[in-house]
Amino acid sequence: MWMRTIDWSDEKGCITIIDQTALPSKLVLLDIDHVNVLHEAILKLRVRGAPALGAAGGFGVALLARSIRANDFKDYIKKLTEGAESLKKVRPTAVNLSWGVDRVLAAALTGKDRAEVESTALREAKALADEDVAQCRAIGEHGAKLLESSDTVMTHCNAGRLACVDWGTALGVIRSAVEQGKDIKVISCETRPLNQGSRITCFELMDDRIPVTLITDSMAGHFMRAGKIQKVIVGADRIVEDAVFNKIGTYSHSVLAKAHGIPFYVAAPLSTFDFTRREKDVIIEERDPEELRRWNATQIAPAGVPVYNPAFDATPMQNVTAIITEQGILEPPISFARLKKSSS
Amino acid sequence: MWMRTIDWSDEKGCITIIDQTALPSKLVLLDIDHVNVLHEAILKLRVRGAPALGAAGGFGVALLARSIRANDFKDYIKKLTEGAESLKKVRPTAVNLSWGVDRVLAAALTGKDRAEVESTALREAKALADEDVAQCRAIGEHGAKLLESSDTVMTHCNAGRLACVDWGTALGVIRSAVEQGKDIKVISCETRPLNQGSRITCFELMDDRIPVTLITDSMAGHFMRAGKIQKVIVGADRIVEDAVFNKIGTYSHSVLAKAHGIPFYVAAPLSTFDFTRREKDVIIEERDPEELRRWNATQIAPAGVPVYNPAFDATPMQNVTAIITEQGILEPPISFARLKKSSS
Repeated sequence: MWMRTIDWSDEKGCITIIDQTALPSKLVLLDIDHVNVLHEAILKLRVRGAPALGAAGGFGVALLARSIRANDFKDYIKKLTEGAESLKKVRPTAVNLSWGVDRVLAAALTGKDRAEVESTALREAKALADEDVAQCRAIGEHGAKLLESSDTVMTHCNAGRLACVDWGTALGVIRSAVEQGKDIKVISCETRPLNQGSRITCFELMDDRIPVTLITDSMAGHFMRAGKIQKVIVGADRIVEDAVFNKIGTYSHSVLAKAHGIPFYVAAPLSTFDFTRREKDVIIEERDPEELRRWNATQIAPAGVPVYNPAFDATPMQNVTAIITEQGILEPPISFARLKKSSS
Repeated sequence: MWMRTIDWSDEKGCITIIDQTALPSKLVLLDIDHVNVLHEAILKLRVRGAPALGAAGGFGVALLARSIRANDFKDYIKKLTEGAESLKKVRPTAVNLSWGVDRVLAAALTGKDRAEVESTALREAKALADEDVAQCRAIGEHGAKLLESSDTVMTHCNAGRLACVDWGTALGVIRSAVEQGKDIKVISCETRPLNQGSRITCFELMDDRIPVTLITDSMAGHFMRAGKIQKVIVGADRIVEDAVFNKIGTYSHSVLAKAHGIPFYVAAPLSTFDFTRREKDVIIEERDPEELRRWNATQIAPAGVPVYNPAFDATPMQNVTAIITEQGILEPPISFARLKKSSS
């Protein structure tokens, strides 16, 4: 079933999302009518993926603008700004969430009264979501040139339409290549500990009838060595001048790809680029250790065993063959100074 | 609780094992009084790990020798030999299972009547198990020299006392170093898809109060790059002149270790060495795809998604810093011709 992963319902006056924690067993749609519910949805990865988080940030500000109780306009603006700030902190490593919040907040603050703030915020959030779809399509068009018919492409996590508003970044490239008639097969790494690869990427590719085979993350090297993988494409949560931050496991894949002479591509919109930081300045979120100890009711590790559970890792730019953006393909070394000028 | 992972109960006249599929939730002991039960236990990984499978092969022949119904001695020997052959085929990649079966069968066949075959088989199987403990101790002593106090050692799967009769190979090295007073910390990769690392390695190290931290397999590169891993030690299921076969994921770790300048050690008894084959001659078992699709009742991938699930991978010898055996430390290139002579 093809629908936007995150959208605004004019009828209900709230955000609607596909709840990704219910996949692959069930397709559950959630109405989000309060910013606290949105916080929970972002934290629990009901909505996830860099571009979808951008839209979530944008719609979140629109939702805030409608639901704040304030004494006067000054108090309203203060509470809107505070609410926007706390929304950004729910997933600090994901740059798109902040970007979406900031963009829609900036637009909203041009409003001269509450009604204008509300309508401007919603209009801007909708525009952001539409642009996301257009960007993914453009990323797909550019990236598809890098894929040849009969390629098997390995991907990690889910940078698909379920990580975006629609179409996808890494999977958008594959989708565009398939749309052009190329014969592309996908190997999806399950992506521990939350299995976005097995639950979400396999779900959406099967749904679209694109051939996909599931492997454990640890099999990547084995199948690269066996010549079964021609390209690697992943998404990104934050791109700085010296590194790409993406789902934990991406860095290992980049080293393996390099060792086997396999191109390693990152597909991401320019909104993922962070022009202000370098790798050392980015703090990687540490997630709940229970994610490695239990699977629902099943204990898969001893109770209380110490766990490291970083959500992301950093892939140094020298391991990246190219970054596929909506404006074209960028090959490292990438001048962030020039890029910043062209994208602003 | 310290006990042998696999043993013979004289009282009950059967094999006793720790059922490793029940870990880490429960410590379940199983009595195995028929070879069909042993087949199931090996297939379902209730007993697993190369050295423990050697003992299982040996005790399996002893069990066969007692339980066969035969018309005469010739028929008895025929059925014993056939039963031994089919036991070897339960896990064909694991060389120790065959080795244990062959060794005890060869001893048993020297018996001149059924009673002598039975008693010889049991004596030989017990000797094999005792030697396994002594070998692990020797591997531990040799390998401990390679570890320095304050090292953090990463391991994959379980090459511990629960993979052996006792003490362990990879974890035996760590245990011996700790026994010598060295301050060693362990990082255990969870080891998808069956999580022997999280379920078994974490269990036995916590039980022994050796500090262990659990990570997903995909985090190995990240923590190597961060300087948090000084050594990698793994076990082996089969060692040929040009490669080490071990749990799927081992090869990826070896490439990552090499890329980060981290020593990559394999700890295994000489019984794991296969002097007759090269990498290309070994067939890697493909396991049940459901292992990647479900965790007990929880669906973690769409029903019917195609899956690759090789049980093992091959690490080429050039990625191996040294192999730690009961006779000492071998650094590649290893002359298998000379080694065969000295170990036979």
